[in-house]
Amino acid sequence: MTTAEIFAQIQKKKSFLCIGLDVDLSKIPAFLLEKEDPIFEFNKAIIDATHHLCIAYKPNTAFYEAYGINGWKSLKKTIEYLNENHPEIFTIADAKRGDIGNTSTMYAKAFFEDLSFDSVTVAPYMGKDSVEPFLAFDNKHTILLALTSNGGAFDFQTKNVEGHELYKEVLKTSTTWKNSENLMYVVGATKAEYLAEIRQIIPDSFLLVPGVGAQGGNLQDVCKYGMNNKVGLLINSSRGIIYASNGEEFAETAAKKASDLQQQMKSILDS
Amino acid sequence: MTTAEIFAQIQKKKSFLCIGLDVDLSKIPAFLLEKEDPIFEFNKAIIDATHHLCIAYKPNTAFYEAYGINGWKSLKKTIEYLNENHPEIFTIADAKRGDIGNTSTMYAKAFFEDLSFDSVTVAPYMGKDSVEPFLAFDNKHTILLALTSNGGAFDFQTKNVEGHELYKEVLKTSTTWKNSENLMYVVGATKAEYLAEIRQIIPDSFLLVPGVGAQGGNLQDVCKYGMNNKVGLLINSSRGIIYASNGEEFAETAAKKASDLQQQMKSILDS
Repeated sequence: MTTAEIFAQIQKKKSFLCIGLDVDLSKIPAFLLEKEDPIFEFNKAIIDATHHLCIAYKPNTAFYEAYGINGWKSLKKTIEYLNENHPEIFTIADAKRGDIGNTSTMYAKAFFEDLSFDSVTVAPYMGKDSVEPFLAFDNKHTILLALTSNGGAFDFQTKNVEGHELYKEVLKTSTTWKNSENLMYVVGATKAEYLAEIRQIIPDSFLLVPGVGAQGGNLQDVCKYGMNNKVGLLINSSRGIIYASNGEEFAETAAKKASDLQQQMKSILDS
Repeated sequence: MTTAEIFAQIQKKKSFLCIGLDVDLSKIPAFLLEKEDPIFEFNKAIIDATHHLCIAYKPNTAFYEAYGINGWKSLKKTIEYLNENHPEIFTIADAKRGDIGNTSTMYAKAFFEDLSFDSVTVAPYMGKDSVEPFLAFDNKHTILLALTSNGGAFDFQTKNVEGHELYKEVLKTSTTWKNSENLMYVVGATKAEYLAEIRQIIPDSFLLVPGVGAQGGNLQDVCKYGMNNKVGLLINSSRGIIYASNGEEFAETAAKKASDLQQQMKSILDS
């Protein structure tokens, strides 16, 4: 998928919402646990109820790996369901991978070929040769961790490296890598005020922004500082949408929450 | 497994060798491809031929994920085979994971509970709350990336942060985390001269050292600068051992290569 196609979808749906599919069996409605594949059934119901309100889905791989082979099967069924029924939707494997060259290529094959995701999140610590193998895939996107939404972001990411914060060094350096036009970046919504300076380094890139809602980030602030002329934002919400209810009507309640965010996005886009 | 048990195994086997099980179907002997599970059959043959020469095995998860559900099944069969037949051997899931708190707990469950590995490699970029969930598991070890063996290590890891290199900041900061006694560190053999300073920060921790052999690291140098009074080193070799031959006798040839390294380790331990 190209970024132009993502932008077209934003304009059509009046939304730049990404829904995180982080399925925890201890949080989903109890009646689903009797199904053969509760994780997939949960995801299918959420997707059926919300696909017209969002432009991306982001399963975090941890929640699938925790359930072993069955979890991996649920992940595969989820991405296949999305690609078959909603091919216009941008899919993100939130995997935070990264390894030496040849090994990163194997991860890229896992997510871009075996699972057919449009993108994967990648950690920058191991540098250029750990990220470029992901960038080598046509029409696939690598979403590099820059400034994350958790407290631990202040341990290293904001430390001063040669006159600026480490996350800015990551941003600047990454723009010199081969096929860097295939890069997007994770920037947490809890740090919206950082977005203005980030946009000076990477004006055109899409940012995947977690932390709106449950983690306390503010949508208006993120848009004020982070939006570019192609919107350039994918605002993620996971728990705030998918666990809004754990009753029989969980999917409808999730759609209501997604719709609330989409309506806010529509007002911002219209203004 | 405790570090005392690892040390006991080192003394018994006169070895501190870790063998990386990075199975690439394009590199293994062709006759194995006819088997139902070529990856597991390859690993089983390597394990059967080398378990008396090494104290640890380290499958890199990328090589399993690239083959999808079948790859994940091969990984599970491999760890089960190890735990059933060689429970004394230390097992490392080289997964380089890391995410916000609750999500890291799911990764920890995947590798420590579902797959029953003794340890997992973790990336430090997201800081304290991304690593502590792994450290919370009793008798499990978290192997934090510090200074990796690839060229990209110089992109960020060696950048100056408040008077010292970023990897030293990672080492120092990590010692303040809860249950930091469960930490080990990845330090590449290609940078042996850095080990003396690293040992000043973390004198007692085990170091997982990739890069001996194929990547050019030197065993004597690593031991000279990195060994402590409990040895404190797990020297990894992957390609140099497991792909030494791709003929029918691949496992015997791998054992020969492993034995060469074990003999060098024995001389160092005896001297």
